[in-house]
Amino acid sequence: MGLQQAPSDQLSATFSALADPTRRAILARLEREPSASVSELAKPFAIKLPAVMKHLDVLDDAGLITRSKAGRIVTVRLRPEPMREALDWLRRYERFWSKSLDRLAAYAENKEADARKKGR
Amino acid sequence: MGLQQAPSDQLSATFSALADPTRRAILARLEREPSASVSELAKPFAIKLPAVMKHLDVLDDAGLITRSKAGRIVTVRLRPEPMREALDWLRRYERFWSKSLDRLAAYAENKEADARKKGR
Repeated sequence: MGLQQAPSDQLSATFSALADPTRRAILARLEREPSASVSELAKPFAIKLPAVMKHLDVLDDAGLITRSKAGRIVTVRLRPEPMREALDWLRRYERFWSKSLDRLAAYAENKEADARKKGR
Repeated sequence: MGLQQAPSDQLSATFSALADPTRRAILARLEREPSASVSELAKPFAIKLPAVMKHLDVLDDAGLITRSKAGRIVTVRLRPEPMREALDWLRRYERFWSKSLDRLAAYAENKEADARKKGR
């Protein structure tokens, strides 16, 4: 694998930012809490603060968080808008799962009909 | 940026595989066509065949495609299942957009009410 390239389009930047469990955990927390300081965000993780800061840089570059500074406290907030395009992109594959569900439902119905026949 | 790390979990592997416009274009094409050969898939892109092959490796490693060989032809098919988890992960952020839509609807209603008052 070569050097990691900075994604050139928003959708690639969004998916790239989501491709890490620590960054997803940060986003999931900001989904539940309206805001958190950097040190609060870093607390649950076994990684050091500078590593958390780098993850926040990636999320900020992708437009998924905002950071505001008051004195020595940096407050982080979720900016979920770019995830909408990602969700819309993935939605086109939904029909594959609903098809599988249809097949599963048909299978269950056949099994039921078989059981009823045997029950007679 | 350091060296690109291979994602250790399925969800990270899925998002990482989606973080490239060429790979997304390949998946989008396989969503419309049941299967395609590697050379057919490579045709629309300005990149060379080995580069396309590398993208197919990433998609295969993430479990998003299957490849089967018959003679000299490699047939590629979509395997959409891992995208379901990615879609489910993104769904929790949907409420933010529906909230924005509610606000937009309220704004539009107010504007309409204002217009009606002025019209009297």
